Amino acid sequence: MQPVMTVEALREFLRDGFPQVMGPDSGFSVDRVGEGFVVMKLLAAERHLRPGGTVSGPTLFTLADVAAYVAILAHIGPVALAVTTNMSINFLIKPPPGTLVAKASILKLGKRLAVCEVAIAGEDDGTTVCHAVATYSIPPSGSNLTFESRSGEASYQVSNSKNPL
Amino acid sequence: MQPVMTVEALREFLRDGFPQVMGPDSGFSVDRVGEGFVVMKLLAAERHLRPGGTVSGPTLFTLADVAAYVAILAHIGPVALAVTTNMSINFLIKPPPGTLVAKASILKLGKRLAVCEVAIAGEDDGTTVCHAVATYSIPPSGSNLTFESRSGEASYQVSNSKNPL
Amino acid sequence: MQPVMTVEALREFLRDGFPQVMGPDSGFSVDRVGEGFVVMKLLAAERHLRPGGTVSGPTLFTLADVAAYVAILAHIGPVALAVTTNMSINFLIKPPPGTLVAKASILKLGKRLAVCEVAIAGEDDGTTVCHAVATYSIPPSGSNLTFESRSGEASYQVSNSKNPL
Amino acid sequence: MQPVMTVEALREFLRDGFPQVMGPDSGFSVDRVGEGFVVMKLLAAERHLRPGGTVSGPTLFTLADVAAYVAILAHIGPVALAVTTNMSINFLIKPPPGTLVAKASILKLGKRLAVCEVAIAGEDDGTTVCHAVATYSIPPSGSNLTFESRSGEASYQVSNSKNPL
Repeated sequence: MQPVMTVEALREFLRDGFPQVMGPDSGFSVDRVGEGFVVMKLLAAERHLRPGGTVSGPTLFTLADVAAYVAILAHIGPVALAVTTNMSINFLIKPPPGTLVAKASILKLGKRLAVCEVAIAGEDDGTTVCHAVATYSIPPSGSNLTFESRSGEASYQVSNSKNPL
Repeated sequence: MQPVMTVEALREFLRDGFPQVMGPDSGFSVDRVGEGFVVMKLLAAERHLRPGGTVSGPTLFTLADVAAYVAILAHIGPVALAVTTNMSINFLIKPPPGTLVAKASILKLGKRLAVCEVAIAGEDDGTTVCHAVATYSIPPSGSNLTFESRSGEASYQVSNSKNPL
Repeated sequence: MQPVMTVEALREFLRDGFPQVMGPDSGFSVDRVGEGFVVMKLLAAERHLRPGGTVSGPTLFTLADVAAYVAILAHIGPVALAVTTNMSINFLIKPPPGTLVAKASILKLGKRLAVCEVAIAGEDDGTTVCHAVATYSIPPSGSNLTFESRSGEASYQVSNSKNPL
Repeated sequence: MQPVMTVEALREFLRDGFPQVMGPDSGFSVDRVGEGFVVMKLLAAERHLRPGGTVSGPTLFTLADVAAYVAILAHIGPVALAVTTNMSINFLIKPPPGTLVAKASILKLGKRLAVCEVAIAGEDDGTTVCHAVATYSIPPSGSNLTFESRSGEASYQVSNSKNPL
């Protein structure tokens, strides 16, 4: 399973398309793309922490979701908008603050559904702190994903109006 | 299954203990407590939305997680800190902005594990837009949850140092 | 959400199409069909039990899967073959032998995906012993499900050869 | 994470304790034990197949459940009875008949909960056809698992009567 987008292409696409999640201050970054997988990093900042100093559940969910989405994007290209339909996420250990590394591996890339596994570990430690499996619905081919800048804020739209689900 | 905390007690507990999530501007609020369930609301604001105007996945995850946590808290009282160990979440329909209503119903309340089902719907429409089932680990009884204010920012700690998992 | 098949039509369809699972000695039966749900029963026999006398995990999985499948069938009719793509199942209490009642409620019935929730309880007791949420992929409309008898053993085939996933 | 039981010890334990699932005609066998994982095989026979000749969902569920259970057993020893509390299973491709290989890897082995990931592939092909993540509750230490033969049929019991959940 060969990726069709480079790390640079993914970064540009995400920066334009998802400025809230992937903006320069978001802490999220694409680190590596390989056959059937991507690696993303999150530099957990104050706002990502729960009292006690551990990274919050919603932050781990977001990292898993973004990493799986990027893995699919990297392998089908920016021509269609995958939509998360299901995620099962296991919180294994409370992660300390610092940089988290998420490896998202594609388990299935079908015409209509893609399934990704994500393992999140601390960068220093390497112990898996969180594990998720997510399913994405892929809209009918022919759907093109385009971005338009509107008053400095990007928005995306799918040219094919079919409801992907 | 009778609740042991009132709506008012839950609100106070959450405001003190989780100011980031449950603060006055968070949009989250406890609406109702009943036998085996709670109802929470989220007034989805700009920051909860994805481009296109639908409520983001991480926001729905947070609402489901908070509602399930509050349901357990309401029935075991503020004496122990339940920790999310697993959530399986299904995104059914992209929810429009506005007020979301989450009903969290307890499926099991054991000595060590609690399982909650959460259905999220739009307040006006009533159609379920998101459904989740979450498992929480309950620490050994005797653990007391206390809050201490430290430089204006609350933090919680469990007096019993046993790792709940 | 109105069902389009009666209890009798479902029974006949399942007896012909799935003789292994739904044959006269299987213990499974369709009990009731309503708006958005079906109720199935399983009379747990010796072969459904684990040592200790509780109903086995695979038996509960099968009951949940069959009930959800039948709920979808009841509402879209026998024109397409739904395929289980995901199930998240929680085992809450070890169920004693006897009759189990499974209520499968449709959470979403889309053009491509259906999501069902299943609660399984003992007939006498009523306490939920197992809870599952399952996703089914629905093949493109136009697919017709037909059965042909071959040496006394039914087999099904979808006339539309498109891979549903 | 070092295993504490050998392949031979696991085979003997399972044959005595779970004759229905692991008997000589069951098709299930323990193939390999390593650091943090086990490999099991299933030679899918007629009774494991659905019409059309693909391995049934309940059979894949059973294989995933048994493999994860054995992985935990191999690493904690036959002193406690782990109970499945949750499984999220994704059916990726309809598996053809033949031998299936399940690799169960431990993601977390805590005092109270263990989490295992299982990937199932065809022996010849190597493509993952099914993926599961399962959580097991581990009873309080001190619980001893013993088998007693009763009229030729083994049964197990936990000497510590505490409900593990």
